[in-house]
Parts: sequence; structure tokens; C-alpha cells
Amino acid sequence: MESFSIRLTLALQEVQNPLVVGLDPRVEHLPEPLRPASLAPEEVAQAYREFCRGIIDVVAPLVSAVKPQSAFFEQYGPAGCQALADVIRYAQDKGLLVLLDVKRNDIGSTAVAYAKGYLGREASVWGADALTVNPYMGDDSLQPFVDTAVATKSGVFVLVKTSNPGGRMFQDLVADKRTIYRHVAAHVERLAEQTSDVSGYGAVGAVVGATYPDELAELRSTMAHAWLLIPGVGSQGGTAADIGIAFDQHGLGALINSARAIIFAHNRDEFREEFGDKRWQAAVEAATCDTIDEIRSVM
Amino acid sequence: MESFSIRLTLALQEVQNPLVVGLDPRVEHLPEPLRPASLAPEEVAQAYREFCRGIIDVVAPLVSAVKPQSAFFEQYGPAGCQALADVIRYAQDKGLLVLLDVKRNDIGSTAVAYAKGYLGREASVWGADALTVNPYMGDDSLQPFVDTAVATKSGVFVLVKTSNPGGRMFQDLVADKRTIYRHVAAHVERLAEQTSDVSGYGAVGAVVGATYPDELAELRSTMAHAWLLIPGVGSQGGTAADIGIAFDQHGLGALINSARAIIFAHNRDEFREEFGDKRWQAAVEAATCDTIDEIRSVM
Repeated sequence: MESFSIRLTLALQEVQNPLVVGLDPRVEHLPEPLRPASLAPEEVAQAYREFCRGIIDVVAPLVSAVKPQSAFFEQYGPAGCQALADVIRYAQDKGLLVLLDVKRNDIGSTAVAYAKGYLGREASVWGADALTVNPYMGDDSLQPFVDTAVATKSGVFVLVKTSNPGGRMFQDLVADKRTIYRHVAAHVERLAEQTSDVSGYGAVGAVVGATYPDELAELRSTMAHAWLLIPGVGSQGGTAADIGIAFDQHGLGALINSARAIIFAHNRDEFREEFGDKRWQAAVEAATCDTIDEIRSVM
Repeated sequence: MESFSIRLTLALQEVQNPLVVGLDPRVEHLPEPLRPASLAPEEVAQAYREFCRGIIDVVAPLVSAVKPQSAFFEQYGPAGCQALADVIRYAQDKGLLVLLDVKRNDIGSTAVAYAKGYLGREASVWGADALTVNPYMGDDSLQPFVDTAVATKSGVFVLVKTSNPGGRMFQDLVADKRTIYRHVAAHVERLAEQTSDVSGYGAVGAVVGATYPDELAELRSTMAHAWLLIPGVGSQGGTAADIGIAFDQHGLGALINSARAIIFAHNRDEFREEFGDKRWQAAVEAATCDTIDEIRSVM
């Protein structure tokens, strides 16, 4: 198996677009045919399993990767965790890369347990191709993820600049003339450069909110070897027009995540009448293609 | 049910010591009678379940709370998650509070899913009495945990200053004449004060490493309404002598976590000969009592 970065590059060259579909199931937004009979964890978990499989069936030929948000599965306990595990394997069987959004971290020896449990399609129980991690605990908390990612041909995306308004509270504090997120970005670039390969990018990337285009440009140039995972396009307030700056001359180097606008497309005004709840998968397909077109127009 | 802070106060007054036993199972350190026949996730998860139940049986009369480290359970996939859920309920049935160490966070709407899934003995699937969370994403990422904790009579411990050497990398950067961890501490104190009750403490506490005694003293005075959860006594390098400063005049306000030195006491030189692997629970009991005595001597 090739490195994560090479596998991602090949997948992107095949689909010719950087869209990642976020799998963020929420019981209250499920299309009517999939709504569980009750809110019992097992029933909701089963509904999430079917819903995500249905999305994967539609988007697998169109995009390189999906990003399951672990919180929505964990919310329903061990049954939700089992559904998440099943969804990860289902997506990979359909040819997709799986970027698992867990935002984990802990001190080094505990971070090893997270890294070994989650990272690596064949090497770990969960089998993620890449994982999101939180940098607050510093370099020795990140290193186990980096080492495991390299060993298992998987990837790590470190939170650098998040898209929520409150992200500014600590990330934008200025120390030694640089924001905290710039300090984090400098470390991410070191790790990305150290692990980079013929793809030009490393096993370590960065989560960078698209809410602030100037910051995106700054972080793109600061982290030349890092894949950028950009959430916040669509529901979180960013627009596709802001994100052209994130790509290199080959249209690589960045992934654009969109979740709600795609997976709950059947609820959107522009699709509700045409497709409705019953043809929710057709709505997902239409929304995916629209989003891809929109992103391509600014690349 | 009373608030988390009142329940914790009452439990501490009963046991008359601030020790929290960390449930950090690791397959390579299990006593021989509990070692799984293979490393299959189901077998390791079952061994962890039995091991943690055995620890809980011993420590339930001695301490107020246990702190399961989610990473070691998650490492073994959905089976490990099920074991964690079982251990949480088992500990509560034995009269213990459960501080679940997951160090989660995400943007607000996703943080809501974590908070609702984990917080509240009766209100959530996982049923934790308290949860550890990461502050990097700022106030709007913390608020769902605070709101849910208040509504469900549970607690939140925010990472402020961690005990690992790399914790200094970002936490000790200085912005506006204060370290980043002091900025986080100031916000934690606001939240703790806002949620404080007759116990004198709030629903929001802080994780504060004991590696640096001066910092512990500084943070104790900065966060007057916050329970401090202090890991790093024992294996992580802190000593009990450093932690006297963390308590108020009633011996309250701080919890001291010790994991490896207690749960793997059968491997320690001072207990190996007397108890060995077969009497591993007697070693846990002896180590627990020794640790309690050591902590009491500095309070």
C-alpha cells in the first residue's frame, strides 16, 4: 500500500475534485423512510448505518473521501460506535478514503492507544485512513499519531484554525508576534515536511476553517507540505469563492468538506419539491454534483 | 439528584480523601489470571471489563470516584466501547462517581452531540458523572458541555495545564502578559463561578498537571470556584508533596488521580513478592491505602 498522501493524490486525480462528504447524521433530519421507530440507541444507530451507506452508494463514484463525524455516532453509545465502525469499512469497500473526525488527543502514552486503535486501514481495529487530532497538549502528544500514521500509511489532520466564532478566543491570541494558530501551523509544517514524499505532501495535514479567506491564504503559504482539510463550506458560513487560494498549481493540496448541505439535501428548498424524502438519495447526488461544480469554478 | 459539585462534596466527606483511581487498562500489564487468550478485540475488551470490575470492587469503599481513560477502551473498537459502557455502570452501581476521561471537543453543534451522549447519569447513554474536554476551540465549543452539565447534574473538567513535557509548547506561550493556560484558566473560572452552588464550587473544573508546583498554586488561586483534577501523581512524575496547595481549608476543591501505580500494583517491586499476580486485587488495595495515606500526610 502507498502512503496516505500518495493514495489521496491518486484518488483526487481520478475524481478531479477536492470535495469530501461529511457524514454527520442527525436523527431529526433523516429522510422519512429512514427515521427510526424510537430513539432507542440501537434503532438510531441502525438508521445512521443505513443512511450513511445510502450516501456512500451515491457519492463513491463522485468523490475521493468521506469524513464521518464520530460525535454523532458516539452520542448513541456502543451501538453507535458499532455503526461507525461498519460505515468506515463500507466506505472503504466502495473505494473511498475515510477521514475520521474524532479530534482526539492525550498525553503521549495515551495518545499511542488512540493512534494504534484508529490509524491504518489494515493495522487498526477502526481502520481509518486519516484522523483529526487536537494540538493543545503539544508536540509529544502529536508525535504518536505522526509515527503511527507513517508506519500504517495513514494520515493525521491537526486542528490549526477552526471555523467556529469561538475559535478566535485562544487560537488568535498573539505570542511572540504570532497568533497561537500560527505557532501550531509552524509545528504542523515541520511534521508535514519531515513526512513528505513524492506527492509533495506529508502524512500530517491541518484543519483550517474557511471562514476567514485571508487566514486561509496565510496558512496555505505557511504550511507548504500539509494537506489542508477545510470544513465550513456551506452550512458553517464559508463560501466556495473563498477557497481557491488553498490549492496548488495541480489543483491539489486541499480538501473541502461539506456535510449538511449534501447529506440533508432532501430538506433544502431547491431540492425538496423535486425529490422529497423518498428520493433523498437523488437529492444527495444532485447536491454533490452542484457542490463539485461550484468548487471547480473557483479552482 | 443533587448537582455534581454537591454529590462530589458529599462523597469526599464520606471517604475523607481526594484520591481518584484511574482506570487505564493495558493488556501487557494485566495480572496473569486476567490475560486474554489472544489480542482479538472482543477478548481484550472482556479482560478489561473483568479487570476494571475487579478494581472497582476493591476501591469502591475507599474512594469517591474512578476515572476511566477512554483511549484504552476505544483502542479495541466497538467491543472496547461496550466494555467501557459496562464499566461506567458497574462503578456507579458500586456507589462511585465516574469521571470519564475522553478529552473531547468540537464546534458547538457537534459538541452538543458529545455533551448529550456522555453527560448525565440518567440523561445520557454513556451516563458519565463528569467528562474531560479540550479548550482549543474556544468558548462556544465549551458552552454545550457546561449547559448540559448543569441540566443533567454532571460536571466538566477543562484541560488547562497538562502534565506532559510537550504541554508547555502551546500552553506556556505568553499573550497579553499571560500564558495561554492562564487565559484558559480565566475562562474556566468564569464558567465555574457562574455555575457554583452551596458547595462553593461549580459544574466546571480544570485538569491541572501536578508536575510544576508553582503553577499549581497559581492556578488554585486563579480558579477559586473550580474543582481541580490533578493527574500526574505517581507514574507521571509528580509527587504527593507538591499537591497540598491545591486544597481549601476543608480539604476540598481538588481530586488527585493515580492510575498505573494502583491498578498495576501487582507489578511494583514493593508488592510483587507479597501478592504476585494471583492476589492482584490485594495489591490494588494496599497501593490504594498507601496512596491515600501519602496524600493525607500533605493535606
